[in-house]
Amino acid sequence: MNKFLKGLAISGLAFSMIAAGTSAAAKSTTATNNQTKGKSKNLIVLIGDGMGPAQISAARYYQQYEKGIQKLNLDPYYVGQATTYADRGEDGGTVVSGIVTDSASAGTAFATGHKTYNAGISVSNEDVSKPFASVIEAAELSGKSTGLVTTARITHATPAVYASHVRSRDNESAIASQYLDSGVDVLFGGGESFFVTKDEEGKRTDKNLLPEFEAKGYKIVKTAKDLKALTSKNAKALGLFGGSHVSYVPDRSAETPSLATMTSKALDILSTNKNGFAIMIEGGRIDHAGHANDLPTLVQEALDFDAAFKVAIEFAKKNGNTSVVVTADHETGGLSLSRDNIYEINIDLWDQQKHSSESLASALNEAVTIDDVKKIVQNNTWITDLTDEEAQYILDGDGSSYKREGGYNVVISKRLLIGWSGHGHSAVDVGVWAYGPIAEKVKGQVDNTQIAFAGAEVLGVDLKKASSELQSKYLYPKFKINRDKEVLYPAQALAKALGVAYKEAGSTATLTGKSVVITVDLSAGAAKVGGKAASFTVDVDNGTLYLPLAAFNQATGKTLKWDTLSERIILK
Amino acid sequence: MNKFLKGLAISGLAFSMIAAGTSAAAKSTTATNNQTKGKSKNLIVLIGDGMGPAQISAARYYQQYEKGIQKLNLDPYYVGQATTYADRGEDGGTVVSGIVTDSASAGTAFATGHKTYNAGISVSNEDVSKPFASVIEAAELSGKSTGLVTTARITHATPAVYASHVRSRDNESAIASQYLDSGVDVLFGGGESFFVTKDEEGKRTDKNLLPEFEAKGYKIVKTAKDLKALTSKNAKALGLFGGSHVSYVPDRSAETPSLATMTSKALDILSTNKNGFAIMIEGGRIDHAGHANDLPTLVQEALDFDAAFKVAIEFAKKNGNTSVVVTADHETGGLSLSRDNIYEINIDLWDQQKHSSESLASALNEAVTIDDVKKIVQNNTWITDLTDEEAQYILDGDGSSYKREGGYNVVISKRLLIGWSGHGHSAVDVGVWAYGPIAEKVKGQVDNTQIAFAGAEVLGVDLKKASSELQSKYLYPKFKINRDKEVLYPAQALAKALGVAYKEAGSTATLTGKSVVITVDLSAGAAKVGGKAASFTVDVDNGTLYLPLAAFNQATGKTLKWDTLSERIILK
Repeated sequence: MNKFLKGLAISGLAFSMIAAGTSAAAKSTTATNNQTKGKSKNLIVLIGDGMGPAQISAARYYQQYEKGIQKLNLDPYYVGQATTYADRGEDGGTVVSGIVTDSASAGTAFATGHKTYNAGISVSNEDVSKPFASVIEAAELSGKSTGLVTTARITHATPAVYASHVRSRDNESAIASQYLDSGVDVLFGGGESFFVTKDEEGKRTDKNLLPEFEAKGYKIVKTAKDLKALTSKNAKALGLFGGSHVSYVPDRSAETPSLATMTSKALDILSTNKNGFAIMIEGGRIDHAGHANDLPTLVQEALDFDAAFKVAIEFAKKNGNTSVVVTADHETGGLSLSRDNIYEINIDLWDQQKHSSESLASALNEAVTIDDVKKIVQNNTWITDLTDEEAQYILDGDGSSYKREGGYNVVISKRLLIGWSGHGHSAVDVGVWAYGPIAEKVKGQVDNTQIAFAGAEVLGVDLKKASSELQSKYLYPKFKINRDKEVLYPAQALAKALGVAYKEAGSTATLTGKSVVITVDLSAGAAKVGGKAASFTVDVDNGTLYLPLAAFNQATGKTLKWDTLSERIILK
Repeated sequence: MNKFLKGLAISGLAFSMIAAGTSAAAKSTTATNNQTKGKSKNLIVLIGDGMGPAQISAARYYQQYEKGIQKLNLDPYYVGQATTYADRGEDGGTVVSGIVTDSASAGTAFATGHKTYNAGISVSNEDVSKPFASVIEAAELSGKSTGLVTTARITHATPAVYASHVRSRDNESAIASQYLDSGVDVLFGGGESFFVTKDEEGKRTDKNLLPEFEAKGYKIVKTAKDLKALTSKNAKALGLFGGSHVSYVPDRSAETPSLATMTSKALDILSTNKNGFAIMIEGGRIDHAGHANDLPTLVQEALDFDAAFKVAIEFAKKNGNTSVVVTADHETGGLSLSRDNIYEINIDLWDQQKHSSESLASALNEAVTIDDVKKIVQNNTWITDLTDEEAQYILDGDGSSYKREGGYNVVISKRLLIGWSGHGHSAVDVGVWAYGPIAEKVKGQVDNTQIAFAGAEVLGVDLKKASSELQSKYLYPKFKINRDKEVLYPAQALAKALGVAYKEAGSTATLTGKSVVITVDLSAGAAKVGGKAASFTVDVDNGTLYLPLAAFNQATGKTLKWDTLSERIILK
């Protein structure tokens, strides 16, 4: 929440308390009435990244058979399932249907209500993309407190779609910078490396962002202990629990908070805003364990997520004015609970692995002999009889980028009697769980965009208005070219995005701005503004006209600027 | 419905019409009131065998991308998902957890409300099993008409659990014989071979059952044309559309009815009973295509099932007094919509296969050269560039019992960009769809047994009472031994099942019946009845006492009989 809005919110509360002339009890009644009208003051969105149907079944069976716990905390709240497909787009230069989504496009869908291409962070699927506002951004605009919590890097795709806008999810430095201006009050996760420079063992080439966060009032914490020490007086907090992702459950030290601990602290802080809050909490590493095909770790991550859900649902029930919605962005790994025509899964072995496969990767890469591999496997698992063939398979790697770690997981998965179709995502629908007024709006067979619409609806916030505001500020061109140290953009696409009339007739292109007409001789590659020779560079490449921002400044009368970090055009 | 009950039902109707003193319109009002009270006169259960979450997503995406149809008929009725696990049991001599179910145990769960071991057809998981009644049997007892419709053999596990009771699903001859006495009015599916003898190209060793079905008033039909000619005047009908399973959708001739056609005709017939009906309709071959890993055929089978659902839901909406519930028994094949870390599925190729892989199996088995294989593949698919490696892989087979057909599907699946974890089932939860009063009772996260309980509840029929009646008639011993041409049963287990007190002390076993005490000297292997030497055979094997039925006849005063065909003891 911005400082200005926070003031408003408190005034609003003061007014309503005077109007009600009474206590918290009376307020709670009002809250309950709101609930029945299909509204909630607070919204908690939980995303299990890569948590497909088989991942859920796996976690439940593990608890039943290994822990004697019959139900997941999620189970009583199952209301439906969601399609996850992305927009048509490109993957490594190949046009893909979008049926198999990535976390960025799925996140854009359930955060903003809009489909986009894989890798897009809350921008449209166009040659010159527009930003779309998320339910967190709309809540922020309406004076609510907001938060993002994850076990992945805080700059990873799922949190990113809620409070930043970039054409590529890989631009995590820009995502971190955009968080600084987002107003989001609580940011807990991993990913310190995208906040600090290379000199500080980070990834940034520009500057250390942490002092700027501190200057904006964020309390920065980096350990479970410091997280615990935060109080509801810390209105803004940035928790970075690792350079990259937060450690996997089986690899955590006492200094690593669980997702439930982060969730609990975030709710403590955000719930002090009497105007309400919106938060997204992600189990970000269910996905990573799925990518690696590391089932024992995946199950622990899913249960870590389920424990965070428990914190959220208990808060919501006590609070009485909170909607909770849970879904996944997609399934990861093509997990199958059985394999090779055997009607069994060796579930008794699922808790016999000490640490994640990720934690073994460097040791495996250093292994030279079959015996080295056998030793590593034996130290980490129940396996005392690894065969020479299995060890050799691990040494050879599984042929994917996971190499020996992949080979290790092939061997482990065979012994666990579970299957994977690869290291990527799959297109199966994912579950939806919900509590409070939002439940009615997301039940049954839905598309993941419905999660955004329903969230905005229960909060009474305006996604369209928030998007309009963003779209008046930024554009995201897909292509640009460099000519004579100048950056040029595809003229027709950018003209369209800027509302400048563009026409091509014969070898002449015409851009009609508010008070000026630009004509370009496409064969000569020369432009005229109001009949006079233009001073800006012109390029025609493969029949496409490229112009620099200078040309569009003249056409629009604006001062457009290129934001190098976020790879976007700033419109004002 | 039994003749006697049908008489009662008609009387009941006549009475209620007189009581209402009025027309069908008034009756329909009553029906609507019933609906609001959580009851339905009619119940339609649809089972997509092997139709896991990925199978549903696959069918929907196929329709969207290839046919421009956005939703499955099922989609608007999605209400939850169900766990499918079986009871602990054996698979090929190995004790398994039961987490991965087969169709028999899953069917027993959703038909009767009881878990059992894999392969059990509506009998308990005990050394001497008890039969459990299904919702169809309970409906039959309450005077409703009943039906079973499937694209698999009508004697296959899913229909079998609704109207028969055997220890092993493989005993399909017994299942067919039990149908004859079941009272089920409509039986449509494949599987003629289990109704006729080996001399008639069937599988039975005893007799041709068809004349007996005819004698009981069943009209027997074997073609789509004859099926069409059935009218609602045909109160009982047995449709056998193939010696084994009904042909796959892409392999059907004009003589093969679709599941929708069978469904429509069955509803025509059953709905004439004013007392209501209960029917189970199975898409039985989604599972078979899953086992074979033949995705293009699987999708067609899933859509065939979805079309049958459309017939059912339209009937239910028009009828106004019908509950519809849909689920799957389990997932088959470990299907994954994507593979090998590629974020795409080649959905445009999914309708480029002419016939099922099953239809190619014999041609593939006869192939000698790589060119033979290339020709077969080219004739059936879009593939004109099958590589020598791919062709050789097909010639070598995939190492499973599917051999070259399996190899063919490995090659096809790679090109379709979809994955499988094997040829068996998997343990992922399955979807639940519902309409009418039953919907409230099966929504959310449920266990598959809830399908049975909810069905009985909306119909107002008594599963426990129906089970008691069956249990007073039959017992199903797991073990028996043959000694001196006599059949002997484990005495302690059978005594327990029969309610005969059994005690072992030192080397003496005592069975205390109503009016007689049997003592057995376990070391001598000799029995006394009421102090006198017994005339029946005694055997002690590995410390377990075995006795023939003659002994139990004396202990119980009953005349127990062994039913060789159904492998059960008839109690009265």
